[in-house]
Amino acid sequence: MESKKYVYLFNEIDATMRNLVGGKGANLGEMTKLGLPIPQGFTISTEACTKFYVDGKTISDSVIEEIDLAMQRTEEITGKKFGDIENPLLVSVRSGARVSMPGMMDTILNLGLNDEAVLGLAKLTNNERFAYDSYRRFIQMFSDVALGLEKRDFEDILDDIKESRNVKLDTELTAEDLKEVVAKYKELFRKEMGKEFPQSPKEQLINAVRAVFDSWDNPRANVYRRLNDIPGNWGTAVNVQAMVFGNMGNDCGTGVAFTRDPATGENKIFGEYLINAQGEDVVAGIRTPLPIAKLEEDMPEVYKEFMEIANKLESHYRDMQDMEFTIQQGKLYFLQTRNGKRTAQAALKIAVELVEEGILSKEEAIMKVEPKKLDTLLHPTFDPQGLKEATPIAKGLAASPGAACGKIYFTALDAKAHSDSGEKVVLVRLETSPEDIEGMAAAVGILTVRGGMTSHAAVVARGMGTCCVAGCGEIAVSEKNKTFTVGGVTYNEGDYISIDGSTGKVYGAAIKTVSPEISGYFGTFMSWADEIRSLKVRANADTPKDAAQAVEFGAEGIGLCRTEHMFFEEDRIAAVREMIVSKTLEQRKVALEKILPMQRQDFIGIYEAMEYRPVTIRFLDPPLHEFLPSIDEDIKDLAEQMSITYDELKATIDSLHEFNPMMGHRGCRLAISYPEIAEMQTRAVIEAAIQVNKEKGFNIVPEIMIPLVGEVKELKYVKDIVVSTADALIKESGVDLKYMVGTMIEIPRAALTADEIAKEAEFFSFGTNDLTQMTFGFSRDDAGKFLADYYDKKVYEFDPFQKIDQTGVGQLVKIASKLGRETRPDLKLGICGEHGGDPSSVEFCHNVGLNYVSCSPFRVPIARLAAAQAQVTNKR
Amino acid sequence: MESKKYVYLFNEIDATMRNLVGGKGANLGEMTKLGLPIPQGFTISTEACTKFYVDGKTISDSVIEEIDLAMQRTEEITGKKFGDIENPLLVSVRSGARVSMPGMMDTILNLGLNDEAVLGLAKLTNNERFAYDSYRRFIQMFSDVALGLEKRDFEDILDDIKESRNVKLDTELTAEDLKEVVAKYKELFRKEMGKEFPQSPKEQLINAVRAVFDSWDNPRANVYRRLNDIPGNWGTAVNVQAMVFGNMGNDCGTGVAFTRDPATGENKIFGEYLINAQGEDVVAGIRTPLPIAKLEEDMPEVYKEFMEIANKLESHYRDMQDMEFTIQQGKLYFLQTRNGKRTAQAALKIAVELVEEGILSKEEAIMKVEPKKLDTLLHPTFDPQGLKEATPIAKGLAASPGAACGKIYFTALDAKAHSDSGEKVVLVRLETSPEDIEGMAAAVGILTVRGGMTSHAAVVARGMGTCCVAGCGEIAVSEKNKTFTVGGVTYNEGDYISIDGSTGKVYGAAIKTVSPEISGYFGTFMSWADEIRSLKVRANADTPKDAAQAVEFGAEGIGLCRTEHMFFEEDRIAAVREMIVSKTLEQRKVALEKILPMQRQDFIGIYEAMEYRPVTIRFLDPPLHEFLPSIDEDIKDLAEQMSITYDELKATIDSLHEFNPMMGHRGCRLAISYPEIAEMQTRAVIEAAIQVNKEKGFNIVPEIMIPLVGEVKELKYVKDIVVSTADALIKESGVDLKYMVGTMIEIPRAALTADEIAKEAEFFSFGTNDLTQMTFGFSRDDAGKFLADYYDKKVYEFDPFQKIDQTGVGQLVKIASKLGRETRPDLKLGICGEHGGDPSSVEFCHNVGLNYVSCSPFRVPIARLAAAQAQVTNKR
Repeated sequence: MESKKYVYLFNEIDATMRNLVGGKGANLGEMTKLGLPIPQGFTISTEACTKFYVDGKTISDSVIEEIDLAMQRTEEITGKKFGDIENPLLVSVRSGARVSMPGMMDTILNLGLNDEAVLGLAKLTNNERFAYDSYRRFIQMFSDVALGLEKRDFEDILDDIKESRNVKLDTELTAEDLKEVVAKYKELFRKEMGKEFPQSPKEQLINAVRAVFDSWDNPRANVYRRLNDIPGNWGTAVNVQAMVFGNMGNDCGTGVAFTRDPATGENKIFGEYLINAQGEDVVAGIRTPLPIAKLEEDMPEVYKEFMEIANKLESHYRDMQDMEFTIQQGKLYFLQTRNGKRTAQAALKIAVELVEEGILSKEEAIMKVEPKKLDTLLHPTFDPQGLKEATPIAKGLAASPGAACGKIYFTALDAKAHSDSGEKVVLVRLETSPEDIEGMAAAVGILTVRGGMTSHAAVVARGMGTCCVAGCGEIAVSEKNKTFTVGGVTYNEGDYISIDGSTGKVYGAAIKTVSPEISGYFGTFMSWADEIRSLKVRANADTPKDAAQAVEFGAEGIGLCRTEHMFFEEDRIAAVREMIVSKTLEQRKVALEKILPMQRQDFIGIYEAMEYRPVTIRFLDPPLHEFLPSIDEDIKDLAEQMSITYDELKATIDSLHEFNPMMGHRGCRLAISYPEIAEMQTRAVIEAAIQVNKEKGFNIVPEIMIPLVGEVKELKYVKDIVVSTADALIKESGVDLKYMVGTMIEIPRAALTADEIAKEAEFFSFGTNDLTQMTFGFSRDDAGKFLADYYDKKVYEFDPFQKIDQTGVGQLVKIASKLGRETRPDLKLGICGEHGGDPSSVEFCHNVGLNYVSCSPFRVPIARLAAAQAQVTNKR
Repeated sequence: MESKKYVYLFNEIDATMRNLVGGKGANLGEMTKLGLPIPQGFTISTEACTKFYVDGKTISDSVIEEIDLAMQRTEEITGKKFGDIENPLLVSVRSGARVSMPGMMDTILNLGLNDEAVLGLAKLTNNERFAYDSYRRFIQMFSDVALGLEKRDFEDILDDIKESRNVKLDTELTAEDLKEVVAKYKELFRKEMGKEFPQSPKEQLINAVRAVFDSWDNPRANVYRRLNDIPGNWGTAVNVQAMVFGNMGNDCGTGVAFTRDPATGENKIFGEYLINAQGEDVVAGIRTPLPIAKLEEDMPEVYKEFMEIANKLESHYRDMQDMEFTIQQGKLYFLQTRNGKRTAQAALKIAVELVEEGILSKEEAIMKVEPKKLDTLLHPTFDPQGLKEATPIAKGLAASPGAACGKIYFTALDAKAHSDSGEKVVLVRLETSPEDIEGMAAAVGILTVRGGMTSHAAVVARGMGTCCVAGCGEIAVSEKNKTFTVGGVTYNEGDYISIDGSTGKVYGAAIKTVSPEISGYFGTFMSWADEIRSLKVRANADTPKDAAQAVEFGAEGIGLCRTEHMFFEEDRIAAVREMIVSKTLEQRKVALEKILPMQRQDFIGIYEAMEYRPVTIRFLDPPLHEFLPSIDEDIKDLAEQMSITYDELKATIDSLHEFNPMMGHRGCRLAISYPEIAEMQTRAVIEAAIQVNKEKGFNIVPEIMIPLVGEVKELKYVKDIVVSTADALIKESGVDLKYMVGTMIEIPRAALTADEIAKEAEFFSFGTNDLTQMTFGFSRDDAGKFLADYYDKKVYEFDPFQKIDQTGVGQLVKIASKLGRETRPDLKLGICGEHGGDPSSVEFCHNVGLNYVSCSPFRVPIARLAAAQAQVTNKR
């Protein structure tokens, strides 16, 4: 039986082994191969981590044996010996997953020190103070990081001794002082753990490795993975590397540097270093680090070597590098390198310039920018200084990106009124409903207590590009008193708050916001993405304003125009309500006649904004009760306004009540009960197209989309109304207008019977919001209550409303695409759910062979880039 | 090109052609083949009907040509001539679908008469009065049935003439009188239709054929088809048959007869006849018909021939026959025969006796009884005389069969109290909720205003075997005043009403009910069904009482025991509510400790009732807010009772509010949030089994079912809790108890990922109620609002909550069965939705290869029979 290898020396590793040894390990191996000065060591693979969990959280004997062997080989390479009294080998232990992942275990330095080795280190370096300082640091790190003892308790011991010695800085303590610190640390350890601090370097190492593996599964890491689509079964590797010391004197030092500026992208070395320091000192901020340019003066030879290696690394990895280095007694070591994190602006500039420099092809360049990053280019952000000084008072869901600061108001009416009088307004609601639409449009930000990532507030806000924090259950809103309370503090109407829709954080004070700036690099970069991708990108837009915004962001059409949003505008809601309370067909037709010209005007505006681009118009979808008031007072007002009795109106509203409105009388079901509504909408769509084509010379081909179809006869029934109405109008007009009739696939049964449905539908648009709800059997508005438990208990790793569930929902999308195209090979397929703007979902859509994705206008650039990346990935 | 044949002479037809020529046509052909005295004619096929609709409701020229040709052949056979003045051929025109179907076109007799032929008829029969009577009947029938003129207007003319002649009976009118009637009829026709009464026999015939085809699509026929699972695309045939006359003198007569008694099944000729009469006179009730035995005295030769033929027909068709015959001038003609309709009691007796007589095999016998018919054997019915005198005041859905009569009460509490004091009670509610359970159990009948066939009221009532009319929107209930109003009449608390859960009718007065009687034939018959079927039948039962009832009806286990129903009982709801409002795990555990012994006692009772039979127990399913009150007053009471503030309790209830509770925090989602609930339920299930096995020596293997799973990790999480709890208890007890853990498949995603889910599940039970909701995307509680429109517009032909939708939902059942068994070949598969008691759905389950169906106890016999029939059908 061939036994599996779990531990690799750096010199056995190359860049292709990233999945096996993690990013850090792969880079250390690759740098070793390049002949760079790397302290040697070994990597325990991600498979060992997976095995650790399979084996019930134990490190198997065979893995331990391999670690022992690798340590022996490292001893041979370094000429030092682990735990030796003469020439001890000390190591650092670091986690290292496939992708860089905050939230996992911190580094442990100086591992291998014990009561004997510390003597060896003192003798070898001729620096007793250094040796004991290293030992006390190790004890503290090991106890805290590997065993979970309180860091604070160790700090207290150090502080006590400094106080008794009457000194302020650690560096002022003598070797003797530090010996006392070590003794007290060990005593604390004994008291807390009921045993001595481990003297066996091997025991120290195995404990550290276990701590890394454990940290893969800690809550912070789990949350990070969920937010970043990282599967839980990847596991982390562990890197064990020989220590070098930047703190052995003034010919030593340590630093971090980027090959280009990570904030601006400027092609110039960027970084800082400290003389006579260990890694953590740079971060600790006790001394101010020096800019990297200063190294040229301090140590010209070292600087020259450093720059040569930095350039070599950037050329080798063909990307901006983030490097850590240490100088030990005049000799330069690289501890790690990786592709550097950068701002969105920098990412674009670097990608474009790397192409111009001939280092990357366009296809490679577009892979260098994470699509979600583009968001920050399109929305306001907080002034960094202001943000630094602010403390969040609550946290909700990051529902629609951007930053906003304004005075709080608690009703849509108040928000609108105060916005009209020039105030910046944040609308705070328990939840929003379509009635709130004007208040939402007037607000710079929206904060809701209930509802998830695809709640009404979230969807509408993203469509508008307005910042939104949703489902912030921590705040207690009193709509009556127009206040909210959190952490014992009450915020009143008119108070300032700030909200960050990219993080979900809420701040109880005003924070300055900064408007986004779009550079020329953006245009160049996106034009490359457009050249490469085959998947089209449309936008979900309901108004001429949204349509214009969508075109500006590069949308190639409208994939979803929701006609009902138009119904809520103040000047037409009266006619809509009149239609709903109609008792007879005649009454209803009178009301519809009033709505027709308004709706026609909407479409004229949208067609004009979209020019030659296709527009898919979805017919009335929500249950009718959404258009009627629910509070007694409002009902009384409306009854008066409509000249009917309160009882009569109340009875109508009651009769429209539904137990589960999501699964109620909506979508095409409305058109089947009230064909005259579909007829009116057809008139509006077709008359507007005829008029605009005549006046502007466009060639608009309206795409009429029938929602919530589950059975082909539903579609057929409504389509017959559409076709007979449209054909009569076209004939009457004497022009030759083409139009298409298609359907949403958002009901599981529609997907399962797509071959039948395609007989009537000329296009499918996957409504993956509803399809996800029905396939999972949970309502997006209610799922917030248990999804947190699901993440905690690792039942789900991600929110299926944000990222398409390829296993279940995706299977239905595939089935429907296949069946649909069997019936109608040229069937146009698209997606118009929220997933249309999610990169991993866009990739899925590309792979399934959809023709387009449609998303909110502000996500269009993200979708364009994700589509291009999918094309490249797929080709590889 | 071979052209299709659409018209068949009777002598071209045999019994195998039923689908093509309809039941009536097939029998006429078969009888012709048998050499029986059948007036000859021809049948226009069901395919001609289908073609009629495809061709846009026109009868194509080629079909008309075929009709002409068949008429010529009929003329040749009969020696008469259509429309002839000398020897006119008259025909009857009748519809005839594959299965007998009320609601379609009535018969038209005497077709072919016109102003000339009537003279021929008079001459030929030497009976002018007869000829004109035939003519006026024809004009009236043709105008009414084929052209839709008002029958009443024709009756008025006849009445006027009788009045002017001062006579009472039609038969008292003279030939001259009847000539005047004919003239006035024709005048009325001219006035109404704007043209003369058609004199062309051919035109008459084509109009009549069109009327039959049209009637296939009339509303009554559509409703009948929906209720009886008859596809809309079958179409009807048209039978054109030469007339013979029973009204030409005293050597003539007409009658109907059954070869056995259709009410009791007694093996004795049963029927009646009238001398000198035409068919409709027997029905009209002007003269009292004579019992068939009297014919032996009146016309011994005819009687002998009649009996020979009757016996021949029963032997030939191997079933009780329903025959129409006419005697024309001493010669006997059979006009049609068919398998006779019969009561459930008669059906059983006939089936059993036909086996005993050696005519049928057991397998054939069980095919002779429609499963749904068994319902009437198990429930009370109205006294037929009482029913005849009653007029319904409203009609709702026939939600749970049986008849009930009692005093109305409007709250569960009132119903319970008055029932306890000895009254028979009908509970009237807007809708029921689980809180009403005790009131429902106390009532003899339940009437609700809202909700469909699978609403709470309907499901629970069927489970209890209690009569229920649901969704009766016509009545306006005032819960405040404790009254309901319909048709301007108000019914108060304590008034008597009667409801029929088999027809949905509501009566505003007391009607006597008759208890069901189960004969020995039932036992014999059902034992044959049990021998034949392979599909097991279980029952859905939540209490020891239901369990015992289920066993009595032949259930082989419990397929669904809903644990939450137990939570509503008065003595435990307090503990349940305490659990729900708990703020901490500890509080919740205290409450659960109180529930545990009660729940354990439930299971002990059920196990004891079921003895060795398997019991599947579903863990807590409904959202928690169902257990809390919703009305302010009740909330106040409860808060006081629980010693918490109103505000606190209200806040808890508000926080549990859901937009779409069907898709909310329920099912396994509860167990994931509150594992301690699953733990308590596991304890109750396992401890009860250990105790009963010990005490009774049973070998109970509890089957624990986790509801609403959509992802295998959900199941795994809950299963881990179940297994660790159960295994610890078993180990502690020292006995060897087996148990199984499985899941409901009721979420589309579960079906699509069934291969994964089967890794953890030891059995699947298809929860087709929820699966139908999710697959169609509509809520069963809300669908009532639009399903009526769907039937009217023929978007749906049946209610998918009553009969499984094989195209969509069935596809998921098949996918899940296949995937599940790929992972686990011995996976036990069952169904526990309402469909488990629907015959066509049972057949589907048999064909898919499920192991069992589970339905409410009162449907168990239906399912047993349906399962046996599926086995036979499948084998053929």
